[in-house]
Order: sequence, then structure tokens, then C-alpha cells
Amino acid sequence: MDNTYTEKQLRDFAYRIFRKMGCIEPDAQLAADVLLRADLRGVDSHGVARLSGYVRLWEAERINAKPAIKIIHETPSTAVVDGDKGLGLVVAPHAMNIAIEKAHKCGTGWVAVKNSNHFGIAGYHSMMALPHNMIGLSMTNASPLVAPTFSTERLLGTNPICVAIPAGKQPPFVADFATTTAANGKLEILQRKNEEAPLGWVQTKEGKSTTNAHGVKEGGALIPLGSDREHGSHKGYSLGAWVDIFSGVLSGANYGPWVPPFVSFLAPPADPVGEGIGHFVGAMRVDAFRSVEDFKHHMDNWISRFRKAKTVAGQPGVVIPGDPEREQEKIRAKEGIPLNGKVVEDLQEIAKKMQVPF
Amino acid sequence: MDNTYTEKQLRDFAYRIFRKMGCIEPDAQLAADVLLRADLRGVDSHGVARLSGYVRLWEAERINAKPAIKIIHETPSTAVVDGDKGLGLVVAPHAMNIAIEKAHKCGTGWVAVKNSNHFGIAGYHSMMALPHNMIGLSMTNASPLVAPTFSTERLLGTNPICVAIPAGKQPPFVADFATTTAANGKLEILQRKNEEAPLGWVQTKEGKSTTNAHGVKEGGALIPLGSDREHGSHKGYSLGAWVDIFSGVLSGANYGPWVPPFVSFLAPPADPVGEGIGHFVGAMRVDAFRSVEDFKHHMDNWISRFRKAKTVAGQPGVVIPGDPEREQEKIRAKEGIPLNGKVVEDLQEIAKKMQVPF
Repeated sequence: MDNTYTEKQLRDFAYRIFRKMGCIEPDAQLAADVLLRADLRGVDSHGVARLSGYVRLWEAERINAKPAIKIIHETPSTAVVDGDKGLGLVVAPHAMNIAIEKAHKCGTGWVAVKNSNHFGIAGYHSMMALPHNMIGLSMTNASPLVAPTFSTERLLGTNPICVAIPAGKQPPFVADFATTTAANGKLEILQRKNEEAPLGWVQTKEGKSTTNAHGVKEGGALIPLGSDREHGSHKGYSLGAWVDIFSGVLSGANYGPWVPPFVSFLAPPADPVGEGIGHFVGAMRVDAFRSVEDFKHHMDNWISRFRKAKTVAGQPGVVIPGDPEREQEKIRAKEGIPLNGKVVEDLQEIAKKMQVPF
Repeated sequence: MDNTYTEKQLRDFAYRIFRKMGCIEPDAQLAADVLLRADLRGVDSHGVARLSGYVRLWEAERINAKPAIKIIHETPSTAVVDGDKGLGLVVAPHAMNIAIEKAHKCGTGWVAVKNSNHFGIAGYHSMMALPHNMIGLSMTNASPLVAPTFSTERLLGTNPICVAIPAGKQPPFVADFATTTAANGKLEILQRKNEEAPLGWVQTKEGKSTTNAHGVKEGGALIPLGSDREHGSHKGYSLGAWVDIFSGVLSGANYGPWVPPFVSFLAPPADPVGEGIGHFVGAMRVDAFRSVEDFKHHMDNWISRFRKAKTVAGQPGVVIPGDPEREQEKIRAKEGIPLNGKVVEDLQEIAKKMQVPF
């Protein structure tokens, strides 16, 4: 059975589902665009595979399809946005637009967001800055799956960061990564194939490194980037903590173990410390520092120098952050998006439930 | 032989050395303060152990003791500073003061610095924001010692990042770390003891992980945080690259393999792409996002929750970033600063050369 779909098929379907949830037209378009961008870029865990999750959270009334997103506090270069329980897929681009507007006026713009939900791939939001000749930054906290170094408790999410930097003739530098050794999506792939994980990705509930790819579901936790103390896991933990504090504490959202789960079958903590989940986004005008022309010239030079680096025998060339996703995007835009069988079943199910053809 | 000195002894000595180099009084005081803060906080590699390095760079006329540090470009929330070949120990706090001033006015301030030198511990600069109820950020590029994932070439420095976040009753959160698996200072300790390094810290000149703590000097390289591709070294490389681009490309400093070496016996590259080394610092007013009172209340809650986390049997409690350095600072302020025998010899040598009593 061929499970490959065109971008348009999946985009139309996602759009109609969001419309059925009650999203206004531009919001449904935007949310579908964020999901499809993930599927095109090869981040399968964050694309239409997540659609059923959003639907279920909406059914549980934990997502508001018609949010009144508003600025509740601001200065010339900052704002705090209340997402009104909206889709993170819609709230985060809204916040990023505010950051870009502020950057136009005073060089940089920084927006902390509370009362939001899962925002899809971080890359979508920071890359919004690129056409404006701005550097974009985005991060989000997420439901707790990660144990700080020395702990057996899941206190942090995979808390991704993305930095997007424009270049000239070269494509942009886009580093988008979870602050854990491996993103949860990579584990899900191993789980489906019933394969083992490398040591250093997952720990048991006693806190021992394990190759069990199902370890997190069995009371264990993901491990921060670094894998163990000797290899710098305290730095990965610090990074994840930084993202949590910027996204949650600065905005007035939940943070740490209080971040509500993405899955509807797990109830949010009964003692919230804030509202929803939090994001933090920013935009910096390149010409707030030096001329766009000079900057792009040197970014091109940076990128070509790194591309030309001597490589370890038998290894591929040095990768510029953003290259693999961009290459995937070219291929999938042409050849279509292959979906996992389980994801197709999932989409068929919501198609039926929401009475939208698939 | 007891090699323990009081803070005052070392501070006075460093001050006099900087004065002999020709620094004006407040600059000499500031530079000595940055070095001593490192020694007090237990970051021995960045304290007076570096003093002879600064002296030699000054002798080689690569450090200007009387720099005319100036803003060469600015917007309400940004600036670019030309350090005029000054000591990074002086230039970076200067830049941070500009960031703080801008944050007072428009919420945040971001300063990219070119034409500077080694700035000591990143923590010093970002912590300057704390008394202003601001979050501080600092990063710097550094001479190339690190190979990007899949490469055998040293193209990045250890490129540290520090984020300092104020709390209320709890001490501040201060995460200050090199974007490599291990900082170079840790390797130097192993080298002095003639001990082996764990696998994943250093690679040979062919790009194979090695336990040889002298591997970098033998044509190898430090490895980005993550240790290998399977454990996320591409994320550590992305982080280091981010720091390099913000510090070097945005400011007009050198970047990547063009960053001039700290040691005077190695000549700077003959084909510079910018001026000196670069830093990037920032300050964000907490109340540009939410009230200081609310923020501090939740930071205290964040910190106490993480401190109370269940720990792995036989392991210490969860560490809040900044705790170990602060505890060390308390001890050393009282009991003095123990110096390595080689460092003492080094200081005696510059004492003689500069005719300053030690």
C-alpha cells in the first residue's frame, strides 16, 4: 500500500479539520501550513502525525479554536502575549509577527507567550524572520519527559531551540534542535520498529542509562544533551532549564513539572503555576548591527568555509544546520510525503469523526 | 609549600600588572576584578593563571592597554562596539553596561563587540545584569580548537554561553558553559596530572575519539557537546556555531578558523576576515515581561522544586546552575585561593619582568 500523499492533499485535509474545529479561515490555513512545513522538512513527528492530538485536546476543551490572542504587557522591544488557549501553531506565528514589528522599530523584538499549546516545529517561527533580513529565535517548553542530571524525576520537556540566520547566496543557517540527546520523535521511530536505543538517550526509573526505547513509558526519562555528567549532561540540562524559564517563568505560563501534557488522556496538573504552556520568540534586524550586505557576505564566507572543511575518512561532509531539512523539503515537495501506516489510520479516524473526506 | 593566596594579594598583584601595562586605574581594577572572580568561583583556568597570557599579548602589541572603546553603530535596543584591541576583561563589561542602559530605556539591550580579546569568564558579564533585576546573556568566540561533527579541522572555539537569571530568596540561576563536551581547562588539569581523558572529549587528527588528554596539541581537536553524532554532537556544533556567528559575523570580528589565538607564540591568521575576537552580550529587564515580584516568586518556586527532585541512588542532589561556583566563592573568600605550582612560577616570572612585587 502506498502511503505517499501530495503536499496539497495533506494541507487541504489539515485545513478542513482545523476549520471543523472552528478555526477562522486564516488561522486554519496557518495551522495547516505549520504542520505541512514539518512534514515537508522531514520532521515527521511534528507534522500531520500530530493532527489527531490537536483534535483530541480540542475535544477535551483544552484548545480554544477561536482565541482572542492579545498583548498583555509591552515595552518598545518586548511583549507578553496571552494565547487564550489557542493552537500554538497559530499563537506562536502571531507572537513572532509582533517580535518582527518591534524589531523594525527598535532593532530587536522579544515576545514571551503564555496560555498556549504545542507550537509545532520551532523552525517555522524563527524562519519567519528571514525574509525581513532578521535573525529569528524561537523556543518552547513542553510536557515533562526529561530528568535533570542526577535525578530520577521528569521535570523538563525536550524544550527545543531554533536559531535562523539569513545568508546571501548561501541558504540560511537554521539550527533547530531539542535540548535532549535525542528528540522524542527519534525514539518513537525505534519503538515502532521494536529496536533498541543507543545508551545515553533514555534512563530507567532508577536513573540508569538503558537501551530500552520504551523506557520513558515505563517510568524512566529522556536524558539531556550530553548523555551523562562526564560528557556534559549538566550543560544539556542547563539549556533545557534556560528554555523553560524563558518560555514559562518569564511569560506567566506553567513551567517544569507543571507543564500540561500534550496528550488528552493525561490530565493537566491540578495545581498549575501559570497558564498553558509557554514560548519565547525573538527577532533581531541584521542592520541593527551591520549592513545587510556585509553581514550576508560574511555569512556566505562562514558557510562555504565550513562546507569545505576536511572530513573524517568515510564520513559525509560537514553539515550546515538547516541543510538536511531543506534538501528533504525539495524532494518531498516534488515526490510527496510518505506517511507511516499508523498515521494514515489515525487520519482516517479523524476524517470519519470530523466528517471530512480523506 | 603552601600555594594559597588571599583574594586581596592576587587582586593587588593583578591590578599592578595591568597598571604597568598602561591601563588606566578603573580599567586595571576592572580587569583584576574579572580575573579574581574566576579564581574565587573555582574557574581556575580563567583567573590569574591567564595573567601571563595577557601580558605576552600586550608585549606582542596585540592588546592595547589604553583602548578608545566606542559604539560604531546603534539602534534603540542594539549597538556594535569596537573594542580597539583592548583587554576583553575591560571591553566586555563596557559593552554589558551599554546593554543594561538600553534595556532600562526600551526593555532589552543587545551589544555585539568586535576588535576585542579574551574576556575571562562569561559569567562575570551576564551577572552584571542581576542587580538591575535583569536577565543577562553573554557569549564569545575563541581561537579554534573544536572540530564540527564529521570534520578533522579545528574551526570553532570552545565558545561559551552564560545566562544569568535573578531570583528572589533563592540565589540567581547562572548557567555558564563551554559548548564542547568538556572545557579546555578540564583537559589542562588532566594534562598536568598525566591522566587520560574520557572518550568523547578529544579526537585525534584523523577524527577518532581518543583518551589522550594531549590530543589537541598533537593535531586533534576538542569535540562539541554531545561527543558523537549518535549522541547529538551536531547540536553542540550548532550551539558553538551560533555563538561564533553572533559574536563574530554580527559584530565584524573574526570568526571560525580566523579567530586569532590567545597565545602570543602563534601568529594571528594572515588573512583576517574581521577585527580581533568577538563577543555578544545582552540584558533583558524582567519587568519588560512581568512584575519583578511575580517573576522572582516563580523563579524561587522553580529553583526549590528542582532542588527537591528525587535523585538517583548514590548521586548528589540536583544542581541548580550557579550553585557550585557560588559555594566555591564563599569558601575561597574566607580560606584563600589555592594556586597550582606552575601558575605561581608563572606569576613570579611576570612579577620579575614587570618589576612588581609578588
